[in-house]
Amino acid sequence: MPEDKLTPRNEDFSEWYNQIVQRAELADYAPVRGCMVVRPYGWALWENIQQALDRRFKATGHVNAAFPLFIPMSFLEKEKEHVEGFSPELAIVTIGGGEKLEEPLVVRPTSETIIGYMYSKWIKSYRDLPVLINQWGNVVRWELRTRLFLRTLEFYWQEGHTAHASEEEARAETLRMLDVYADFAINEAAVPVIKGIKSQTEKFAGASMSISIEAMMGDTRALQAGTSHFLGQNFAKAFNIQYLDPSNELKWVWTTSWGLSTRFIGAIIMTHGDDQGLILPPRLAPLQIVLIPIYKNDAERNAVMTVVERISGELSAFRLKVDDRTEVTPGFKFNDWEMRGVPLRIEIGPKDVEKGTVAVARRDKPGKEGRAFLPQLNLAGSVERLLSEIQDSLLQQATHFRDSHIFDPKDYAELTEVVQNGWAFSWWCEADACEAKVKEETKATIRCIPFDQPEASGQCIVCGKAAKRKVYFAKAY
Amino acid sequence: MPEDKLTPRNEDFSEWYNQIVQRAELADYAPVRGCMVVRPYGWALWENIQQALDRRFKATGHVNAAFPLFIPMSFLEKEKEHVEGFSPELAIVTIGGGEKLEEPLVVRPTSETIIGYMYSKWIKSYRDLPVLINQWGNVVRWELRTRLFLRTLEFYWQEGHTAHASEEEARAETLRMLDVYADFAINEAAVPVIKGIKSQTEKFAGASMSISIEAMMGDTRALQAGTSHFLGQNFAKAFNIQYLDPSNELKWVWTTSWGLSTRFIGAIIMTHGDDQGLILPPRLAPLQIVLIPIYKNDAERNAVMTVVERISGELSAFRLKVDDRTEVTPGFKFNDWEMRGVPLRIEIGPKDVEKGTVAVARRDKPGKEGRAFLPQLNLAGSVERLLSEIQDSLLQQATHFRDSHIFDPKDYAELTEVVQNGWAFSWWCEADACEAKVKEETKATIRCIPFDQPEASGQCIVCGKAAKRKVYFAKAY
Repeated sequence: MPEDKLTPRNEDFSEWYNQIVQRAELADYAPVRGCMVVRPYGWALWENIQQALDRRFKATGHVNAAFPLFIPMSFLEKEKEHVEGFSPELAIVTIGGGEKLEEPLVVRPTSETIIGYMYSKWIKSYRDLPVLINQWGNVVRWELRTRLFLRTLEFYWQEGHTAHASEEEARAETLRMLDVYADFAINEAAVPVIKGIKSQTEKFAGASMSISIEAMMGDTRALQAGTSHFLGQNFAKAFNIQYLDPSNELKWVWTTSWGLSTRFIGAIIMTHGDDQGLILPPRLAPLQIVLIPIYKNDAERNAVMTVVERISGELSAFRLKVDDRTEVTPGFKFNDWEMRGVPLRIEIGPKDVEKGTVAVARRDKPGKEGRAFLPQLNLAGSVERLLSEIQDSLLQQATHFRDSHIFDPKDYAELTEVVQNGWAFSWWCEADACEAKVKEETKATIRCIPFDQPEASGQCIVCGKAAKRKVYFAKAY
Repeated sequence: MPEDKLTPRNEDFSEWYNQIVQRAELADYAPVRGCMVVRPYGWALWENIQQALDRRFKATGHVNAAFPLFIPMSFLEKEKEHVEGFSPELAIVTIGGGEKLEEPLVVRPTSETIIGYMYSKWIKSYRDLPVLINQWGNVVRWELRTRLFLRTLEFYWQEGHTAHASEEEARAETLRMLDVYADFAINEAAVPVIKGIKSQTEKFAGASMSISIEAMMGDTRALQAGTSHFLGQNFAKAFNIQYLDPSNELKWVWTTSWGLSTRFIGAIIMTHGDDQGLILPPRLAPLQIVLIPIYKNDAERNAVMTVVERISGELSAFRLKVDDRTEVTPGFKFNDWEMRGVPLRIEIGPKDVEKGTVAVARRDKPGKEGRAFLPQLNLAGSVERLLSEIQDSLLQQATHFRDSHIFDPKDYAELTEVVQNGWAFSWWCEADACEAKVKEETKATIRCIPFDQPEASGQCIVCGKAAKRKVYFAKAY
């Protein structure tokens, strides 16, 4: 197989993924085990994700701030479940300025503790509440098995941390931010997601309740694409975050946290990509259009480039690149931009100049179906419509793929089969033992207890006991 | 002195600075020595700085990426001057995932080494050049004496790292990016800066030449506000960054790096602030306008709020906040927003409703001079002009202050006097010994050898020997 062909998805999905990340120049391996370099094309995608989310955070009243990278080890120990969950994954600074530190510093794996400490300084009265702060930054978790974007020692994310006067308000915030994530995933990334509650064994270390958005990748495995945690008063009590209420009584606050990371780039790749490479949703793509001039000689070149320049000017509202490299063929360029997932290719050759047309090719529909000639007249409008169609079509395709791989197995034996190539949507009695049995015997876990539940009850798919809610069982990233 | 009055600048400039940072809620001390928390108001200012710079980076052909936080210790040792310069300031991770690491990891103090390593992987041919990458991120330097924003263990910055085929091109890039910084400082932050070359003793560890923008603070001390380094082939050779030129010969690249950090927030505070608090330049201010309704009873309130809502709608192109808190008086609000440096205050009371006017107060001109009544009609236009006047006036005031504190001492004795309350612009023979003598005897250092030089030559202010260039001597932050 020549170096320029990707390993097909159905042959080795994992290898296909690794190749795409490297060849589309999204990321590269760093010299430190498990760390990544996010290359300019990948970072431009992340910047677009950041903007789409940040806009939503600000529209819901949140502000950004920056808390320190280093957390005293003793802070983590203040919340029992939290320290148990994160201890095995810590990177620890023991030397600073040439001297051994008295107290080792943890490189933050998440910031509940240090932010809790600061909130206890800042929050005095009910008038100071709610505090609605988000942080964009890097965190470190010492993972053993790593994959670019999906699981790296250092990764980039946002973490929101809010404090509220009442439980009700904190619970509403937890839900609101999951809605923000779902809206972003569906409407910006064209990644259909299911919202639901994590089981007790899968929840965040230190949370009272975790909820998540779950997406199905192209190999049918599930990926947790964003989480929101109701932390109850766990961190309020650990860090003594108290306020005076209107009747001058001292109360603990209620807190939440929620995060979405560069892992989401993995979700985009594995939801939309095909055997030619990446396919990016137009709303997030660093480049929405690539414009390729086609010519054989200088005379043709002059005529074509005049039109190319005019049209690239007319399309300046889009993220567009003219690929006028002379050292490679148009065919090479087609493959190159297909690999990088640019949603729309426009070709302009001598015949197009004559006829006042352009040739367009949609990345989401390879082959004839995605090709057309369009008049140069009012091209901006046509392109706008096309990009919007591509965005919609990606969401439809992904939703169709997901829904056709969700099964309702009639019994446990069938469950063990369907989770090999799909998700099982099944009744569960909510006993840890049944959850553990499925995990042990099939490697599938409970991805979530979805908010959307049938108006009925049934029998646990594992033990047959009465069950009130259905859950998704799936193998996960 | 009541808690709400700042220590005056001429009484204790340093204490005035610390108070402003805390009371304007720009930043707070973190529980780890020397680390800071950038609070939402401070971070919003940093976000505006980021946007103003990022726009300029992209307009000059740069792209963003993200390189790892952790650097193997051995990487730093590959460039002799670099490791000597940075060794005393390193934070070192020795434990990961519960185990002692075979090779300790440095938390990046700057990224020349790890980026050099990646460039050696990516750059193969002259077609791959130039590489023009910038990174927004956090770095750690284990400083002993720290001040919020000015010098903290962890700080936020951007670091540009570029690689070029020729020395000429790399030198041009070094200059271009300093021009970008100067343009940003002058036209966005209203901070007048002087561009020049650092002396050999003051240059970046590992650079062939460092150039900087230098600003004068309100206590006349100098602050290095941004630097750009021509790294020659030092890092190219240390990390083996080579390319094949068009005639297929293997050559070393030439590299540059350049950075501007959250320290710049300190420059803004100390350039413009007064005894009432912060004064922010309108182009960077998180809030450009605060709108304060004035009323005594519900009837007045209703009339006033109707106008306030209409006007805040008309001014939606500006960053505006309506302060309709009922638990504090208008006087409290005036002081509060003056402390936070909001450039323009608009008050609307019952008489304004009657007369169709608003009362405005400029933050840069306290007292009557900065107050006026404006018609509500076409208020957006008037406000636009006022903000632009404030921006210009801040730059003029700062330039005037700086120029009236730059002296041309007639001899060394006078130099030792003028650097106690200003800068000396003097001839220097370029000998390290003369530079060292000034530093030892006055604590003033050579801030830069400015690009702007008189068309003449003279005698070194220290030793009397022939000198070709004048330099700025000043005490510095």
